[in-house]
Amino acid sequence: MANVTFASEVTWSGNGVLSTADVQGKKFNIDEPRELGGTDQAPNPVEYLLGALGGCINVLVTSFAKQFSVEVKDLSVHIEGDLDPDGFQGKNPNVRPGYQEIRYRIDIDSPSPDENVKALIEHVEKVCPVKDTLQGTAVKNLNYISAT
Amino acid sequence: MANVTFASEVTWSGNGVLSTADVQGKKFNIDEPRELGGTDQAPNPVEYLLGALGGCINVLVTSFAKQFSVEVKDLSVHIEGDLDPDGFQGKNPNVRPGYQEIRYRIDIDSPSPDENVKALIEHVEKVCPVKDTLQGTAVKNLNYISAT
Repeated sequence: MANVTFASEVTWSGNGVLSTADVQGKKFNIDEPRELGGTDQAPNPVEYLLGALGGCINVLVTSFAKQFSVEVKDLSVHIEGDLDPDGFQGKNPNVRPGYQEIRYRIDIDSPSPDENVKALIEHVEKVCPVKDTLQGTAVKNLNYISAT
Repeated sequence: MANVTFASEVTWSGNGVLSTADVQGKKFNIDEPRELGGTDQAPNPVEYLLGALGGCINVLVTSFAKQFSVEVKDLSVHIEGDLDPDGFQGKNPNVRPGYQEIRYRIDIDSPSPDENVKALIEHVEKVCPVKDTLQGTAVKNLNYISAT
């Protein structure tokens, strides 16, 4: 299949660091806690990465469950990631700005045979777009535009 | 500084592929369009990645503006990424499931000298946690738990 291009416009509110992302009319706010100059109204950017990973795993588990003969009664994913603020605050050039590591745990309530559940999870981990993207994607600046 | 650990719980709604991410009490929904089995109520996981990148750039531009003597009147980021559905649908093992590439364009309205704006943007690109994370982070499965 040809590539699908997803896109978003993220506009600064003019208030602190608060921004709103618009994805084809669906909107969500991005903020920071007060200690990072925000007003703590919404998750921050790195928290959205974790939620996106959990959401992606849930989408795939529920979408592929039938194919692996798995009945899903309940499903949640715990995701966590370690980040050293010295990196993005520019205090230590030896510290990477992003997550050092991201970890997740899938909690699935299913009466189906454990081998089916295991096969489903292994498949989901192999085809998860968010997991794959986080593990290494080229991110390019098209350019920046300064209007005066 | 020591690492800060961010975390999120993402719980399946029981309805289609819709999930809700909870980040310390702040919640957002994750869905898919109808053609991917969703009800199109919220952005999908890979769209959240783009919004997170734009939000992160905006946070950093506005946070570091003063340090680079840049006045920001208006600011938005356009982000786009190409993804071939054959990858996550398991139709072609040679296609990666995640984004092939992510691109962004920063639109900044500033009366400040262009060299200041340029230096600010270069700094932001260097210290952006989301950009850095997307470019390659270890993502580990702690384990999965199947309750019967």
